Amino acid sequence: MDLDAPDADTPRARLRRFLERDIVRNSILAIIIFNAITLGISTSDWAMAHFGTVLRRIDTIVLTIFVIELLLKFIAYGPAFFRNAWNIFDLVVVGVGLLPATNSLSALRGLRVIRAMRLLSVVPQMRAVVQALLDALPGMGAVMLMLAVVYYVFAVIATMMFGDAFDEWFGTIGRSLYSLFQIMTLESWSMGIVRPVMVEFPRAWLFFVPFIIITAFSVLNLFIGLLVNTMQSAVEEEAEEEFERLRELVRTETDAVDTNVQELIEEVRALRAELARERGEDNG
Amino acid sequence: MDLDAPDADTPRARLRRFLERDIVRNSILAIIIFNAITLGISTSDWAMAHFGTVLRRIDTIVLTIFVIELLLKFIAYGPAFFRNAWNIFDLVVVGVGLLPATNSLSALRGLRVIRAMRLLSVVPQMRAVVQALLDALPGMGAVMLMLAVVYYVFAVIATMMFGDAFDEWFGTIGRSLYSLFQIMTLESWSMGIVRPVMVEFPRAWLFFVPFIIITAFSVLNLFIGLLVNTMQSAVEEEAEEEFERLRELVRTETDAVDTNVQELIEEVRALRAELARERGEDNG
Amino acid sequence: MDLDAPDADTPRARLRRFLERDIVRNSILAIIIFNAITLGISTSDWAMAHFGTVLRRIDTIVLTIFVIELLLKFIAYGPAFFRNAWNIFDLVVVGVGLLPATNSLSALRGLRVIRAMRLLSVVPQMRAVVQALLDALPGMGAVMLMLAVVYYVFAVIATMMFGDAFDEWFGTIGRSLYSLFQIMTLESWSMGIVRPVMVEFPRAWLFFVPFIIITAFSVLNLFIGLLVNTMQSAVEEEAEEEFERLRELVRTETDAVDTNVQELIEEVRALRAELARERGEDNG
Amino acid sequence: MDLDAPDADTPRARLRRFLERDIVRNSILAIIIFNAITLGISTSDWAMAHFGTVLRRIDTIVLTIFVIELLLKFIAYGPAFFRNAWNIFDLVVVGVGLLPATNSLSALRGLRVIRAMRLLSVVPQMRAVVQALLDALPGMGAVMLMLAVVYYVFAVIATMMFGDAFDEWFGTIGRSLYSLFQIMTLESWSMGIVRPVMVEFPRAWLFFVPFIIITAFSVLNLFIGLLVNTMQSAVEEEAEEEFERLRELVRTETDAVDTNVQELIEEVRALRAELARERGEDNG
Repeated sequence: MDLDAPDADTPRARLRRFLERDIVRNSILAIIIFNAITLGISTSDWAMAHFGTVLRRIDTIVLTIFVIELLLKFIAYGPAFFRNAWNIFDLVVVGVGLLPATNSLSALRGLRVIRAMRLLSVVPQMRAVVQALLDALPGMGAVMLMLAVVYYVFAVIATMMFGDAFDEWFGTIGRSLYSLFQIMTLESWSMGIVRPVMVEFPRAWLFFVPFIIITAFSVLNLFIGLLVNTMQSAVEEEAEEEFERLRELVRTETDAVDTNVQELIEEVRALRAELARERGEDNG
Repeated sequence: MDLDAPDADTPRARLRRFLERDIVRNSILAIIIFNAITLGISTSDWAMAHFGTVLRRIDTIVLTIFVIELLLKFIAYGPAFFRNAWNIFDLVVVGVGLLPATNSLSALRGLRVIRAMRLLSVVPQMRAVVQALLDALPGMGAVMLMLAVVYYVFAVIATMMFGDAFDEWFGTIGRSLYSLFQIMTLESWSMGIVRPVMVEFPRAWLFFVPFIIITAFSVLNLFIGLLVNTMQSAVEEEAEEEFERLRELVRTETDAVDTNVQELIEEVRALRAELARERGEDNG
Repeated sequence: MDLDAPDADTPRARLRRFLERDIVRNSILAIIIFNAITLGISTSDWAMAHFGTVLRRIDTIVLTIFVIELLLKFIAYGPAFFRNAWNIFDLVVVGVGLLPATNSLSALRGLRVIRAMRLLSVVPQMRAVVQALLDALPGMGAVMLMLAVVYYVFAVIATMMFGDAFDEWFGTIGRSLYSLFQIMTLESWSMGIVRPVMVEFPRAWLFFVPFIIITAFSVLNLFIGLLVNTMQSAVEEEAEEEFERLRELVRTETDAVDTNVQELIEEVRALRAELARERGEDNG
Repeated sequence: MDLDAPDADTPRARLRRFLERDIVRNSILAIIIFNAITLGISTSDWAMAHFGTVLRRIDTIVLTIFVIELLLKFIAYGPAFFRNAWNIFDLVVVGVGLLPATNSLSALRGLRVIRAMRLLSVVPQMRAVVQALLDALPGMGAVMLMLAVVYYVFAVIATMMFGDAFDEWFGTIGRSLYSLFQIMTLESWSMGIVRPVMVEFPRAWLFFVPFIIITAFSVLNLFIGLLVNTMQSAVEEEAEEEFERLRELVRTETDAVDTNVQELIEEVRALRAELARERGEDNG
């Protein structure tokens, strides 16, 4: 396994070079876009009635191409294949199409189109955007965890307090979590949920209004943290650049003075030497 | 075609100077505002019943003036007319009023008022605002494209999974795209759409909640990107200015030292010269 | 009118000093807060039934005090009284309470409580906040005007296209403006308005979705502009401060070098002088 | 009470060291998480029917542990215990579980789960996040107060104007405050509240639309203030750091020149000394 020697002319190195050629990448990209369109067309009953066989055949062919591509990649890169998160993404996304479309899972057939997400992994600019989004996540970790704790506590309280009377909204922790998510997005929180609850529990607003304020304030801080981080790294870069320019400037200017001082030293030394010579002559 | 010699006294140069005179521009501006008001009045049935003929005549006259203005501009600038995007904007916006108001298109008559948008193209400050908005777009390109891919994939899946049971909302890709846009704006997403869907598909939240989080997070990043870009160029300008002031400061200060060092060099040179002269005298 | 000589002991100067004493200001503040509370209590039917006479009497007394205060201010400051926008604010806000509470205007009685807004004009910190909010407005001017043009055009089109079929929402320009404002806030825009409209006009989304995107994008830019402006002035101040410190630093450092160079010049001059003296002696 | 001598080997010092050991902290953390889960499970009727006795016993044991922990802390730290806000937080949050679960307060049993919030006080990173959120509050004080005044005034007006006709929404100041909060979050503000009110009071939009704009604009400024503050302290830190680097740079550079100048001074002094010696010799 000489992955470190990409210029070697082993069959695997040649396969890697083949897979990385522009024409191969662009063909795959074209197939992804084409398949995304055919999958979109498959949603139309009319199209399925008239071109169903063709569409299904296209899907099988595309899936076969993708499987072969991933197999070739695995052969070409060996275990290193799994070290690239995008390869695993491709594997999962293509793998979904291989699930058996039995009756009970027929709804999952729709998931095949998730394959179109390969656009994100094949186009480098898209990869960069997704990477930037993911890079933003860790900085949000602590606030997210805090939000999760607050969420869980409110969900348990809501289930215990309102669960019996409003089974549909707060009957179980799961339902409470969903309803609280809805309330956090402010969708029908008052007319749809809190006002009906207040008919039964007149003080329910003491629970829901603080929840809205706390989560809104936390999300705001999440956002501000994210923004300040992004901004700061931009400003830091800018500051670094300006510092370089200032260093250059200060150096140039002090060097000019220094050159003059050096010249002066030469001058004084020459003077001393002259005097020494003269004295030598005098004494000589 | 000597557009490069605007001072020339050809008829076309004179026409250009005429069109660019303040009085002409302001008259056009006044007509646009006047027409915007009359078009607003035309929406009232009562006004149409009483002053319908007058209002219609005003509209025809204004339209004629606009057509003549654009014709004159075309004559004055020749093909260069089409190189200015604002001229094309004016052309389209005025052209809409020339469409035949047949029965089938009568609803389109309302589009005539789009002419009032010429305010944006005639007032320079408005042009600057629109320009700034448009300038912000390219920086959003990559995230927009990613959002479009995510959108399309979710729309196809929604159509395949929920299309049969909820034809009105997810019957076709078009309907799914519209419903997902509504869900992205958080309008009635839960009470209006997802809760009814969950009655049929209890796990539907596994589809919709991630969709909301992904799009909200993407839009947030879109916004942050936009903000950081705007900010950065503002900060950069600021930094540039500060750098100039610092350069000035460092130069002034080192120049002061340098002057002293120069003086010193003169002093030492004078000393050497004196000593040399003295020595000459001694030896002389 | 010697407003420029506040130390003079004319009756008006004494009145001004009286009105500006802390005890007077704080008494007025206390009365405002007390009146805000009594006005709040007046909203309760029970309280009005039991203490109605007292509450009404308190209101009359407070109003009298405010009127006297403003009269005294006018006497003390003369026409200059009207040059302070806060005085005009106080005048309007107190004046509302003097409106006759006839039957037809009884609903306007509620407006008396607007008097509590004097808190904003009496507390200096509140004045600063309101001032900051108002200072932010001019920077938003151009985008606001653009938004107004877009709004008006969409309202006229909506009235012409959907006015006949949906009179309640788009029957007149006023109704259209209100409905578009509602749509801009995303409240029930789809389930409440656009979906019903699409039953009649299936392509109505071509009108409403762009409207939402344009206004959302404009408001976003409004916000970004506001933010960048606020930020920039903060950063500018920061940069100014840093520049001062850098100037100090560069000066101190170059001064240190300069002192040494000066010392050196003295040294060389002393040397020259010695040599000159020596030579004098030699020649003497 | 020698809290200042933590190394002393008094029983209280030993108790403090015991409470601060990692194993003790982590055990408490584990118990908190375990209890959060059991409290979550207690919301399920099925679980309560089958394991009710166990769950209740676990709850009693956990509560006992927490009470003992807090007692030990109080013994260990004495009155200083109350100087730490987190201890008071723990005390309140644990104390809620000690409330008697009488019938009338049975709904409050749900509040026991608030104990899980101790996660925020036990995990140091969580403490930092909460601290950051709280630190952001004072900077928002003035705008918050202004918002409160505006809110109160609008609530009183709404109660007086619409209270009789729309008792459910504006019957009392409390109901008006709640309804205005709902309107501020834009939830069903138009279709749910303002349109029905406008049927009775056609000019009601003159009250509600300004309210929405004023509160939206104030909240925006609140947010911008918060953001600029956070940003500014980040930028300030950055600037401080850059200043340090610049100071270093300027010092290094001027020191280099200074060293040369010093060398020069030595040189000139040596020259003078030589000349003096020479002269001495001459005269000697």
